[in-house]
Amino acid sequence: MKRLIVDMDDVMADATGQFLNYYEKEFGVRVLRDKLNFQDELQGFPEHHREAIYQYTFKKDFFRTMEVKAHCQDVMKRLNDQYDLFIVSAAVEFPNSLTEKLEWLGEHFPYIHWKQIVFCGSKAVVRGDYMIDDMAYNLDHFNGEKFLFTAPHNLQHQQFQRLNDWKEIEERFL
Amino acid sequence: MKRLIVDMDDVMADATGQFLNYYEKEFGVRVLRDKLNFQDELQGFPEHHREAIYQYTFKKDFFRTMEVKAHCQDVMKRLNDQYDLFIVSAAVEFPNSLTEKLEWLGEHFPYIHWKQIVFCGSKAVVRGDYMIDDMAYNLDHFNGEKFLFTAPHNLQHQQFQRLNDWKEIEERFL
Repeated sequence: MKRLIVDMDDVMADATGQFLNYYEKEFGVRVLRDKLNFQDELQGFPEHHREAIYQYTFKKDFFRTMEVKAHCQDVMKRLNDQYDLFIVSAAVEFPNSLTEKLEWLGEHFPYIHWKQIVFCGSKAVVRGDYMIDDMAYNLDHFNGEKFLFTAPHNLQHQQFQRLNDWKEIEERFL
Repeated sequence: MKRLIVDMDDVMADATGQFLNYYEKEFGVRVLRDKLNFQDELQGFPEHHREAIYQYTFKKDFFRTMEVKAHCQDVMKRLNDQYDLFIVSAAVEFPNSLTEKLEWLGEHFPYIHWKQIVFCGSKAVVRGDYMIDDMAYNLDHFNGEKFLFTAPHNLQHQQFQRLNDWKEIEERFL
């Protein structure tokens, strides 16, 4: 069985949408998702608000209440049957995210066993055949085949194969 | 720089000692460490108490208050300067252990960066040059050189090179 490594934030979970939701709640303005395109994370928000926005990641329930990306649940279930599947999330930077991410996975992906979950800092330490991630720097040191999952903050990167949504993951891997 | 992967429980932290402490507190009997030798974890305790003992791992502060193994702090500090060091702990089975382990590392090993910490289920997903672990099944699938760190529950395993304490780690790696 080939080993497939899948990221959580902005691959399985709509982290960008959560930032937009929290921002709207605090500042009363709905920033359009397109405004974030072609820039590193958070750079599309007003500069004097960026530190406040980064602090959302330390707030209770920020990770617990993210929406699941469209078609992710159905496609992941079938990937789980056909691949040696691991969920690898760079979660250690945000200590309170660890149990929230476990609960989130338990709610939306109950068929994923705890043995398949990895919370790390640097992803340079994992190995596999395929990695799907929204961050170019996570793919950089990977030993297998690399796929950049499209997000507003990675549109400027051209060095990787791209998967634009879960329907494309389905086509490529199933 | 060579990548060195080090386990936490019963390598950096005295997990066995913590089981003995909690058992004594509950049942009023100090089980001698030697009684656990040459048997899988917990098998040296009375059979009708084993389920209760396993439940200690879900109790608050079980992981947070473990003692650090002798000479570990000093040796780790120097390993951290000379190796691409990762702490890899199979912690996802015990959700409440995640933040406790982070706090424990922060207290006793403040020089270890969050990027160097990995909490996983199966360790089959990590790669490196050397792995030090007390569990034979964690070493089984590792791609690099394997070292079994001596603990009561692994004395029956003969298939790996052995490191008996942190002085031996110092001699081998520094």
